[in-house]
Amino acid sequence: MRTVYVIGIGAGDPEHLTLQAVAAMNRVDVFFTIDKGEQKSDLAGLRAELLARHVPGPHRVVRARDPERDRDASSGRYAEAVADWQDRRAAIYERMIAGELGADGTGGFLVWGDPALYDGTLRILDAVRARGAVAFDVVSVPGISSVQALAARHRLVLNRVGRGFVVTTGRRLADEGFPPGVDDAVVLLDAAGAFAGLPDTDLDVYWGAYLGTPDEVLVSGDLQAVKARILAERAAHRARKGWIMDTYLLRRRR
Amino acid sequence: MRTVYVIGIGAGDPEHLTLQAVAAMNRVDVFFTIDKGEQKSDLAGLRAELLARHVPGPHRVVRARDPERDRDASSGRYAEAVADWQDRRAAIYERMIAGELGADGTGGFLVWGDPALYDGTLRILDAVRARGAVAFDVVSVPGISSVQALAARHRLVLNRVGRGFVVTTGRRLADEGFPPGVDDAVVLLDAAGAFAGLPDTDLDVYWGAYLGTPDEVLVSGDLQAVKARILAERAAHRARKGWIMDTYLLRRRR
Repeated sequence: MRTVYVIGIGAGDPEHLTLQAVAAMNRVDVFFTIDKGEQKSDLAGLRAELLARHVPGPHRVVRARDPERDRDASSGRYAEAVADWQDRRAAIYERMIAGELGADGTGGFLVWGDPALYDGTLRILDAVRARGAVAFDVVSVPGISSVQALAARHRLVLNRVGRGFVVTTGRRLADEGFPPGVDDAVVLLDAAGAFAGLPDTDLDVYWGAYLGTPDEVLVSGDLQAVKARILAERAAHRARKGWIMDTYLLRRRR
Repeated sequence: MRTVYVIGIGAGDPEHLTLQAVAAMNRVDVFFTIDKGEQKSDLAGLRAELLARHVPGPHRVVRARDPERDRDASSGRYAEAVADWQDRRAAIYERMIAGELGADGTGGFLVWGDPALYDGTLRILDAVRARGAVAFDVVSVPGISSVQALAARHRLVLNRVGRGFVVTTGRRLADEGFPPGVDDAVVLLDAAGAFAGLPDTDLDVYWGAYLGTPDEVLVSGDLQAVKARILAERAAHRARKGWIMDTYLLRRRR
Protein backbone atom coordinates (compact mmCIF):
# COMPACT_ATOMS: atom_id res chain seq x y z
CA MET A 1 0.00 0.00 0.00
CA ARG A 2 1.21 3.50 -0.85
CA THR A 3 1.65 6.00 2.00
CA VAL A 4 1.60 9.76 1.66
CA TYR A 5 3.00 11.89 4.48
CA VAL A 6 1.80 15.45 4.93
CA ILE A 7 4.55 17.01 7.02
CA GLY A 8 4.30 20.36 8.78
CA ILE A 9 7.70 22.06 8.54
CA GLY A 10 7.00 25.11 10.69
CA ALA A 11 6.42 28.78 10.05
CA GLY A 12 9.72 29.70 8.37
CA ASP A 13 12.46 29.00 10.92
CA PRO A 14 14.31 25.82 9.85
CA GLU A 15 14.66 25.04 13.58
CA HIS A 16 10.87 24.71 13.90
CA LEU A 17 11.17 21.24 12.42
CA THR A 18 10.24 18.46 14.87
CA LEU A 19 12.19 15.26 15.35
CA GLN A 20 9.06 13.47 14.11
CA ALA A 21 9.09 15.52 10.91
CA VAL A 22 12.77 14.75 10.31
CA ALA A 23 12.09 11.02 10.79
CA ALA A 24 9.08 11.16 8.45
CA MET A 25 11.10 13.04 5.80
CA ASN A 26 13.62 10.21 5.88
CA ARG A 27 10.93 7.62 5.12
CA VAL A 28 9.82 9.47 1.97
CA ASP A 29 10.89 8.22 -1.48
CA VAL A 30 9.30 11.02 -3.51
CA PHE A 31 8.62 14.59 -2.36
CA PHE A 32 5.81 16.27 -4.26
CA THR A 33 6.00 20.03 -4.63
CA ILE A 34 3.72 22.52 -6.26
CA ASP A 35 5.45 25.31 -8.12
CA LYS A 36 3.84 28.62 -7.19
CA GLY A 37 6.02 30.71 -9.47
CA GLU A 38 8.84 33.11 -8.75
CA GLN A 39 7.09 35.07 -6.00
CA LYS A 40 7.55 32.52 -3.28
CA SER A 41 11.02 31.35 -4.26
CA ASP A 42 12.27 32.15 -0.73
CA LEU A 43 9.89 29.50 0.55
CA ALA A 44 10.91 26.99 -2.10
CA GLY A 45 14.52 27.71 -1.12
CA LEU A 46 13.84 26.91 2.52
CA ARG A 47 12.17 23.63 1.53
CA ALA A 48 15.23 22.68 -0.52
CA GLU A 49 17.49 23.65 2.40
CA LEU A 50 15.56 21.40 4.79
CA LEU A 51 15.85 18.46 2.39
CA ALA A 52 19.57 19.05 1.87
CA ARG A 53 20.21 19.34 5.60
CA HIS A 54 18.03 16.53 6.95
CA VAL A 55 17.53 13.91 4.23
CA PRO A 56 20.95 12.44 3.42
CA GLY A 57 19.51 9.31 1.79
CA PRO A 58 18.23 8.90 -1.77
CA HIS A 59 15.00 10.67 -2.63
CA ARG A 60 13.35 12.35 -5.60
CA VAL A 61 11.57 15.67 -5.87
CA VAL A 62 8.67 15.87 -8.34
CA ARG A 63 7.30 19.27 -9.30
CA ALA A 64 3.93 20.26 -10.73
CA ARG A 65 2.46 23.62 -11.62
CA ASP A 66 -0.17 25.12 -9.35
CA PRO A 67 -3.51 25.52 -11.17
CA GLU A 68 -4.71 29.11 -11.46
CA ARG A 69 -7.01 30.22 -8.66
CA ASP A 70 -9.62 32.96 -8.75
CA ARG A 71 -8.29 35.10 -5.90
CA ASP A 72 -10.65 37.96 -6.70
CA ALA A 73 -13.82 35.94 -6.08
CA SER A 74 -16.34 37.89 -4.00
CA SER A 75 -16.95 36.77 -0.41
CA GLY A 76 -20.04 34.79 -1.38
CA ARG A 77 -18.10 32.85 -4.01
CA TYR A 78 -14.91 32.29 -2.01
CA ALA A 79 -15.66 28.71 -0.91
CA GLU A 80 -16.73 27.88 -4.49
CA ALA A 81 -13.51 29.31 -5.96
CA VAL A 82 -11.45 27.29 -3.46
CA ALA A 83 -13.44 24.11 -4.19
CA ASP A 84 -12.87 24.55 -7.93
CA TRP A 85 -9.15 25.07 -7.41
CA GLN A 86 -9.00 22.06 -5.06
CA ASP A 87 -10.65 19.87 -7.74
CA ARG A 88 -7.96 20.82 -10.23
CA ARG A 89 -5.25 20.25 -7.64
CA ALA A 90 -6.76 16.83 -6.84
CA ALA A 91 -6.32 15.80 -10.47
CA ILE A 92 -2.68 16.89 -10.36
CA TYR A 93 -2.01 15.09 -7.06
CA GLU A 94 -3.68 11.95 -8.40
CA ARG A 95 -1.42 11.96 -11.47
CA MET A 96 1.69 12.48 -9.33
CA ILE A 97 0.83 9.77 -6.77
CA ALA A 98 -0.27 7.21 -9.36
CA GLY A 99 2.59 7.99 -11.75
CA GLU A 100 5.53 8.44 -9.41
CA LEU A 101 4.93 6.09 -6.46
CA GLY A 102 5.37 2.33 -6.73
CA ALA A 103 2.77 0.01 -5.15
CA ASP A 104 4.52 0.24 -1.75
CA GLY A 105 6.06 3.68 -2.28
CA THR A 106 6.07 6.54 0.17
CA GLY A 107 5.31 10.09 -0.92
CA GLY A 108 5.58 13.33 1.01
CA PHE A 109 4.27 16.87 0.96
CA LEU A 110 6.16 19.46 3.02
CA VAL A 111 3.65 22.10 4.10
CA TRP A 112 4.18 25.43 5.85
CA GLY A 113 3.05 25.61 9.44
CA ASP A 114 0.73 22.78 10.45
CA PRO A 115 -1.28 20.63 8.00
CA ALA A 116 -4.30 21.14 10.31
CA LEU A 117 -4.39 24.94 10.05
CA TYR A 118 -5.50 26.71 6.87
CA ASP A 119 -3.69 24.30 4.58
CA GLY A 120 -5.49 22.50 1.75
CA THR A 121 -3.27 19.42 1.35
CA LEU A 122 -5.16 16.97 3.61
CA ARG A 123 -8.48 18.01 2.09
CA ILE A 124 -7.16 17.57 -1.45
CA LEU A 125 -5.74 14.13 -0.60
CA ASP A 126 -9.18 13.15 0.79
CA ALA A 127 -10.65 14.23 -2.55
CA VAL A 128 -8.06 12.15 -4.44
CA ARG A 129 -8.91 9.09 -2.35
CA ALA A 130 -12.63 9.68 -2.94
CA ARG A 131 -12.03 9.69 -6.71
CA GLY A 132 -10.99 6.05 -6.29
CA ALA A 133 -8.35 5.90 -9.03
CA VAL A 134 -5.39 5.41 -6.68
CA ALA A 135 -5.33 3.95 -3.15
CA PHE A 136 -3.01 5.22 -0.39
CA ASP A 137 -2.79 5.88 3.34
CA VAL A 138 -2.30 9.40 4.65
CA VAL A 139 -0.17 10.31 7.69
CA SER A 140 -0.33 13.86 9.04
CA VAL A 141 2.68 15.19 10.97
CA PRO A 142 2.01 18.35 13.00
CA GLY A 143 4.28 21.40 12.69
CA ILE A 144 4.77 24.75 14.40
CA SER A 145 2.22 27.15 12.89
CA SER A 146 2.63 30.87 12.26
CA VAL A 147 0.10 31.42 15.07
CA GLN A 148 2.44 29.71 17.52
CA ALA A 149 5.49 31.55 16.16
CA LEU A 150 3.58 34.83 16.57
CA ALA A 151 2.66 34.03 20.16
CA ALA A 152 6.21 32.98 21.02
CA ARG A 153 7.83 36.10 19.54
CA HIS A 154 5.41 38.37 21.43
CA ARG A 155 5.69 36.08 24.52
CA LEU A 156 1.91 35.75 24.51
CA VAL A 157 -0.51 33.21 25.88
CA LEU A 158 -3.30 33.08 23.28
CA ASN A 159 -6.08 32.34 25.73
CA ARG A 160 -6.88 34.25 28.88
CA VAL A 161 -7.54 32.35 32.12
CA GLY A 162 -10.60 30.14 31.69
CA ARG A 163 -11.51 31.83 28.41
CA GLY A 164 -11.71 30.72 24.79
CA PHE A 165 -10.45 32.42 21.65
CA VAL A 166 -11.25 32.40 17.94
CA VAL A 167 -8.99 31.60 15.01
CA THR A 168 -10.40 33.15 11.85
CA THR A 169 -9.62 34.73 8.46
CA GLY A 170 -9.20 38.33 7.37
CA ARG A 171 -12.09 37.96 4.95
CA ARG A 172 -14.45 36.85 7.69
CA LEU A 173 -13.25 39.64 9.98
CA ALA A 174 -13.96 42.15 7.20
CA ASP A 175 -17.44 40.71 6.60
CA GLU A 176 -18.55 40.15 10.19
CA GLY A 177 -16.43 42.34 12.45
CA PHE A 178 -14.83 41.13 15.69
CA PRO A 179 -16.15 37.61 16.43
CA PRO A 180 -18.94 37.18 19.01
CA GLY A 181 -18.50 35.54 22.40
CA VAL A 182 -14.73 36.06 22.81
CA ASP A 183 -12.25 38.84 23.58
CA ASP A 184 -9.31 37.32 21.67
CA ALA A 185 -9.09 36.55 17.96
CA VAL A 186 -6.19 35.23 15.89
CA VAL A 187 -6.47 36.26 12.24
CA LEU A 188 -4.81 34.58 9.24
CA LEU A 189 -5.03 35.08 5.46
CA ASP A 190 -5.71 38.80 5.71
CA ALA A 191 -4.46 40.04 2.34
CA ALA A 192 -6.70 43.13 2.44
CA GLY A 193 -5.82 44.39 5.94
CA ALA A 194 -9.24 43.86 7.54
CA PHE A 195 -7.91 44.93 10.96
CA ALA A 196 -7.64 48.51 9.70
CA GLY A 197 -11.39 48.69 9.08
CA LEU A 198 -12.44 47.67 12.60
CA PRO A 199 -14.14 50.49 14.52
CA ASP A 200 -13.34 48.97 17.96
CA THR A 201 -11.36 51.33 20.21
CA ASP A 202 -10.62 48.78 22.95
CA LEU A 203 -8.42 46.35 20.98
CA ASP A 204 -4.70 45.70 21.17
CA VAL A 205 -3.02 44.07 18.18
CA TYR A 206 0.04 41.78 18.13
CA TRP A 207 1.18 41.48 14.53
CA GLY A 208 4.02 39.61 12.86
CA ALA A 209 5.23 38.92 9.31
CA TYR A 210 7.82 36.46 7.93
CA LEU A 211 7.80 34.90 11.41
CA GLY A 212 10.89 32.89 12.26
CA THR A 213 12.86 34.16 9.25
CA PRO A 214 15.60 36.80 9.03
CA ASP A 215 12.96 39.19 7.58
CA GLU A 216 10.69 38.90 10.63
CA VAL A 217 8.81 42.10 11.56
CA LEU A 218 6.81 42.56 14.75
CA VAL A 219 4.45 45.39 15.73
CA SER A 220 2.16 45.58 18.76
CA GLY A 221 0.04 48.16 20.53
CA ASP A 222 -3.37 49.83 20.55
CA LEU A 223 -4.97 48.83 17.24
CA GLN A 224 -6.13 52.34 16.34
CA ALA A 225 -2.72 53.81 17.19
CA VAL A 226 -0.58 51.29 15.26
CA LYS A 227 -2.79 50.16 12.38
CA ALA A 228 -1.36 52.73 9.94
CA ARG A 229 2.14 51.56 10.81
CA ILE A 230 1.21 47.92 10.17
CA LEU A 231 -0.36 48.82 6.81
CA ALA A 232 2.80 50.72 5.86
CA GLU A 233 5.06 47.81 6.92
CA ARG A 234 2.94 45.38 4.91
CA ALA A 235 3.04 47.54 1.79
CA ALA A 236 6.78 48.18 2.02
CA HIS A 237 7.75 44.55 2.59
CA ARG A 238 5.34 43.22 -0.02
CA ALA A 239 6.79 45.64 -2.57
CA ARG A 240 10.34 44.67 -1.66
CA LYS A 241 9.91 40.87 -1.54
CA GLY A 242 6.93 40.33 -3.85
CA TRP A 243 4.95 38.44 -1.18
CA ILE A 244 4.09 38.63 2.49
CA MET A 245 2.90 36.09 5.04
CA ASP A 246 1.58 37.66 8.23
CA THR A 247 -0.77 36.94 11.11
CA TYR A 248 -1.99 38.75 14.20
CA LEU A 249 -3.85 38.51 17.49
CA LEU A 250 -6.57 41.02 18.37
CA ARG A 251 -7.07 41.25 22.14
CA ARG A 252 -9.83 43.23 23.81
CA ARG A 253 -8.53 45.28 26.74
CA ARG A 254 -10.41 44.81 29.99
CA MET B 1 21.25 39.45 32.65
CA ARG B 2 19.45 36.24 33.54
CA THR B 3 17.42 34.48 30.83
CA VAL B 4 14.56 32.09 31.42
CA TYR B 5 13.43 29.82 28.57
CA VAL B 6 9.89 28.49 28.51
CA ILE B 7 10.15 25.51 26.19
CA GLY B 8 7.19 23.67 24.70
CA ILE B 9 8.06 19.97 24.58
CA GLY B 10 4.99 18.69 22.74
CA ALA B 11 1.92 16.74 23.68
CA GLY B 12 3.51 13.51 24.94
CA ASP B 13 5.44 12.03 22.02
CA PRO B 14 9.18 12.59 22.61
CA GLU B 15 9.49 13.07 18.82
CA HIS B 16 7.30 16.19 19.02
CA LEU B 17 10.36 18.10 20.21
CA THR B 18 11.53 20.74 17.74
CA LEU B 19 15.16 21.34 16.78
CA GLN B 20 14.73 24.80 18.33
CA ALA B 21 13.60 23.25 21.62
CA VAL B 22 16.60 20.90 21.66
CA ALA B 23 18.95 23.84 21.03
CA ALA B 24 17.26 25.89 23.77
CA MET B 25 17.47 22.99 26.24
CA ASN B 26 21.22 22.86 25.62
CA ARG B 27 21.60 26.53 26.59
CA VAL B 28 19.92 26.00 29.97
CA ASP B 29 22.03 25.76 33.15
CA VAL B 30 19.16 25.05 35.54
CA PHE B 31 15.84 23.36 34.74
CA PHE B 32 13.03 24.30 37.11
CA THR B 33 10.33 21.73 37.70
CA ILE B 34 7.22 21.77 39.78
CA ASP B 35 6.42 18.54 41.56
CA LYS B 36 2.75 17.72 41.09
CA GLY B 37 2.81 14.57 43.19
CA GLU B 38 2.70 10.92 42.23
CA GLN B 39 -0.28 11.16 39.87
CA LYS B 40 1.59 12.63 36.97
CA SER B 41 4.80 10.67 37.38
CA ASP B 42 4.50 9.42 33.77
CA LEU B 43 4.85 13.01 32.66
CA ALA B 44 7.79 13.67 34.98
CA GLY B 45 9.37 10.52 33.56
CA LEU B 46 9.07 11.77 30.00
CA ARG B 47 10.65 15.10 31.00
CA ALA B 48 13.58 13.23 32.53
CA GLU B 49 13.87 11.07 29.40
CA LEU B 50 14.04 14.14 27.16
CA LEU B 51 16.80 15.65 29.30
CA ALA B 52 18.76 12.39 29.34
CA ARG B 53 18.44 11.96 25.60
CA HIS B 54 19.01 15.52 24.37
CA VAL B 55 21.07 17.40 26.95
CA PRO B 56 24.45 15.69 27.19
CA GLY B 57 26.17 18.69 28.80
CA PRO B 58 26.19 19.70 32.48
CA HIS B 59 22.90 20.98 33.88
CA ARG B 60 21.00 20.97 37.15
CA VAL B 61 17.35 20.19 37.87
CA VAL B 62 15.71 22.10 40.73
CA ARG B 63 12.37 20.92 42.08
CA ALA B 64 9.71 22.77 44.03
CA ARG B 65 6.32 21.70 45.32
CA ASP B 66 3.21 22.89 43.54
CA PRO B 67 1.04 25.08 45.79
CA GLU B 68 -2.43 23.69 46.47
CA ARG B 69 -5.10 24.92 44.10
CA ASP B 70 -8.82 25.17 44.71
CA ARG B 71 -10.01 22.96 41.85
CA ASP B 72 -13.56 22.90 43.17
CA ALA B 73 -14.12 26.66 42.84
CA SER B 74 -17.47 27.47 41.24
CA SER B 75 -17.49 28.86 37.70
CA GLY B 76 -17.79 32.43 38.95
CA ARG B 77 -14.73 32.05 41.14
CA TYR B 78 -12.57 30.08 38.70
CA ALA B 79 -10.44 33.01 37.51
CA GLU B 80 -10.00 34.12 41.12
CA ALA B 81 -8.89 30.65 42.24
CA VAL B 82 -6.38 30.52 39.37
CA ALA B 83 -5.09 34.02 40.17
CA ASP B 84 -4.57 33.07 43.81
CA TRP B 85 -2.68 29.91 42.82
CA GLN B 86 -0.60 31.88 40.30
CA ASP B 87 0.40 34.37 43.03
CA ARG B 88 1.70 31.55 45.16
CA ARG B 89 3.48 29.98 42.21
CA ALA B 90 5.04 33.37 41.39
CA ALA B 91 6.59 33.48 44.88
CA ILE B 92 8.06 29.99 44.34
CA TYR B 93 9.40 30.86 40.86
CA GLU B 94 10.94 34.07 42.21
CA ARG B 95 12.77 32.15 44.94
CA MET B 96 14.04 29.56 42.44
CA ILE B 97 15.21 32.11 39.85
CA ALA B 98 16.83 34.43 42.40
CA GLY B 99 18.37 31.61 44.42
CA GLU B 100 19.55 29.21 41.73
CA LEU B 101 20.57 31.37 38.75
CA GLY B 102 23.76 33.42 38.71
CA ALA B 103 23.69 36.99 37.36
CA ASP B 104 24.14 35.71 33.78
CA GLY B 105 22.57 32.32 34.32
CA THR B 106 20.03 30.63 32.08
CA GLY B 107 17.01 28.86 33.48
CA GLY B 108 14.43 26.71 31.74
CA PHE B 109 10.91 25.44 32.20
CA LEU B 110 9.83 22.46 30.08
CA VAL B 111 6.09 22.75 29.53
CA TRP B 112 3.63 20.34 27.92
CA GLY B 113 2.29 21.30 24.54
CA ASP B 114 2.86 24.96 23.68
CA PRO B 115 3.57 27.72 26.23
CA ALA B 116 0.95 29.85 24.38
CA LEU B 117 -1.96 27.46 24.92
CA TYR B 118 -3.59 26.97 28.31
CA ASP B 119 -0.30 26.98 30.18
CA GLY B 120 0.32 29.32 33.11
CA THR B 121 4.13 29.59 33.00
CA LEU B 122 4.51 32.75 30.87
CA ARG B 123 1.83 34.52 32.90
CA ILE B 124 3.48 33.57 36.19
CA LEU B 125 6.89 34.75 34.93
CA ASP B 126 5.28 38.08 33.96
CA ALA B 127 4.00 38.30 37.54
CA VAL B 128 7.48 37.53 38.91
CA ARG B 129 9.01 40.28 36.76
CA ALA B 130 6.29 42.71 37.88
CA ARG B 131 7.17 42.02 41.54
CA GLY B 132 10.56 43.58 40.75
CA ALA B 133 12.71 41.50 43.09
CA VAL B 134 14.63 39.68 40.33
CA ALA B 135 15.31 40.80 36.73
CA PHE B 136 15.42 38.38 33.78
CA ASP B 137 14.54 38.02 30.11
CA VAL B 138 11.96 35.49 28.98
CA VAL B 139 12.21 33.47 25.73
CA SER B 140 9.21 31.41 24.66
CA VAL B 141 9.82 28.37 22.42
CA PRO B 142 6.71 26.98 20.71
CA GLY B 143 5.84 23.28 20.89
CA ILE B 144 3.35 20.85 19.35
CA SER B 145 0.13 21.17 21.34
CA SER B 146 -2.37 18.43 22.16
CA VAL B 147 -4.76 20.19 19.76
CA GLN B 148 -2.32 19.64 16.90
CA ALA B 149 -1.63 16.06 17.95
CA LEU B 150 -5.39 15.43 18.01
CA ALA B 151 -5.85 16.88 14.54
CA ALA B 152 -2.92 14.90 13.14
CA ARG B 153 -4.08 11.56 14.58
CA HIS B 154 -7.59 12.07 13.17
CA ARG B 155 -6.09 13.53 9.93
CA LEU B 156 -8.22 16.64 10.44
CA VAL B 157 -7.99 20.22 9.26
CA LEU B 158 -9.30 22.24 12.20
CA ASN B 159 -10.83 25.01 10.09
CA ARG B 160 -13.22 24.58 7.19
CA VAL B 161 -12.61 26.52 3.98
CA GLY B 162 -12.82 30.24 4.69
CA ARG B 163 -14.23 29.64 8.18
CA GLY B 164 -13.00 30.29 11.70
CA PHE B 165 -13.08 28.03 14.73
CA VAL B 166 -13.07 28.42 18.50
CA VAL B 167 -10.64 27.02 21.05
CA THR B 168 -12.28 26.90 24.47
CA THR B 169 -12.53 25.07 27.81
CA GLY B 170 -14.87 22.37 29.06
CA ARG B 171 -16.07 24.65 31.84
CA ARG B 172 -17.09 27.34 29.36
CA LEU B 173 -18.79 24.78 27.11
CA ALA B 174 -20.76 23.54 30.12
CA ASP B 175 -21.77 27.08 31.09
CA GLU B 176 -22.52 28.53 27.67
CA GLY B 177 -23.16 25.63 25.26
CA PHE B 178 -21.68 25.41 21.77
CA PRO B 179 -19.93 28.72 21.01
CA PRO B 180 -21.71 31.28 18.81
CA GLY B 181 -20.64 32.23 15.29
CA VAL B 182 -18.72 29.03 14.40
CA ASP B 183 -19.40 25.40 13.49
CA ASP B 184 -16.13 24.01 14.88
CA ALA B 185 -14.88 24.10 18.46
CA VAL B 186 -11.76 22.60 20.03
CA VAL B 187 -12.22 21.91 23.74
CA LEU B 188 -9.49 21.54 26.37
CA LEU B 189 -9.50 21.15 30.16
CA ASP B 190 -12.79 19.30 30.26
CA ALA B 191 -12.50 17.32 33.49
CA ALA B 192 -16.29 17.07 33.90
CA GLY B 193 -17.16 15.81 30.39
CA ALA B 194 -19.14 18.85 29.25
CA PHE B 195 -19.57 17.36 25.75
CA ALA B 196 -21.98 14.77 27.19
CA GLY B 197 -24.38 17.50 28.32
CA LEU B 198 -24.75 19.19 24.92
CA PRO B 199 -28.25 18.80 23.43
CA ASP B 200 -27.05 19.37 19.82
CA THR B 201 -27.91 16.49 17.49
CA ASP B 202 -25.86 17.72 14.51
CA LEU B 203 -22.35 17.49 16.00
CA ASP B 204 -19.53 15.08 15.27
CA VAL B 205 -16.81 14.65 17.89
CA TYR B 206 -13.13 13.78 17.39
CA TRP B 207 -11.70 12.87 20.76
CA GLY B 208 -8.24 11.80 21.92
CA ALA B 209 -6.47 11.08 25.21
CA TYR B 210 -2.78 10.61 26.06
CA LEU B 211 -2.07 11.83 22.53
CA GLY B 212 1.30 10.83 21.15
CA THR B 213 1.98 8.33 23.94
CA PRO B 214 1.72 4.51 23.95
CA ASP B 215 -1.57 4.90 25.90
CA GLU B 216 -3.19 7.01 23.17
CA VAL B 217 -6.95 6.45 22.72
CA LEU B 218 -9.01 7.89 19.85
CA VAL B 219 -12.78 7.95 19.37
CA SER B 220 -14.78 9.76 16.71
CA GLY B 221 -18.33 9.82 15.40
CA ASP B 222 -21.75 11.37 15.97
CA LEU B 223 -21.56 13.02 19.39
CA GLN B 224 -24.86 11.60 20.67
CA ALA B 225 -23.92 8.12 19.44
CA VAL B 226 -20.40 7.96 20.91
CA LYS B 227 -20.54 10.19 24.00
CA ALA B 228 -21.26 7.28 26.37
CA ARG B 229 -18.26 5.41 24.97
CA ILE B 230 -15.99 8.42 25.48
CA LEU B 231 -17.23 8.84 29.08
CA ALA B 232 -16.54 5.15 29.70
CA GLU B 233 -13.05 5.35 28.16
CA ARG B 234 -12.25 8.40 30.29
CA ALA B 235 -13.42 6.74 33.50
CA ALA B 236 -11.57 3.49 32.80
CA HIS B 237 -8.28 5.14 31.88
CA ARG B 238 -8.42 7.65 34.72
CA ALA B 239 -9.01 4.82 37.18
CA ARG B 240 -6.13 2.81 35.74
CA LYS B 241 -3.52 5.60 35.43
CA GLY B 242 -4.67 8.07 38.09
CA TRP B 243 -4.87 10.95 35.60
CA ILE B 244 -6.06 11.72 32.10
CA MET B 245 -5.21 14.41 29.56
CA ASP B 246 -7.66 14.62 26.70
CA THR B 247 -9.00 17.06 24.14
CA TYR B 248 -11.55 17.03 21.35
CA LEU B 249 -13.00 18.81 18.34
CA LEU B 250 -16.76 19.32 17.99
CA ARG B 251 -17.76 19.80 14.34
CA ARG B 252 -21.24 20.73 13.20
CA ARG B 253 -22.40 18.63 10.23
CA ARG B 254 -23.67 20.57 7.26
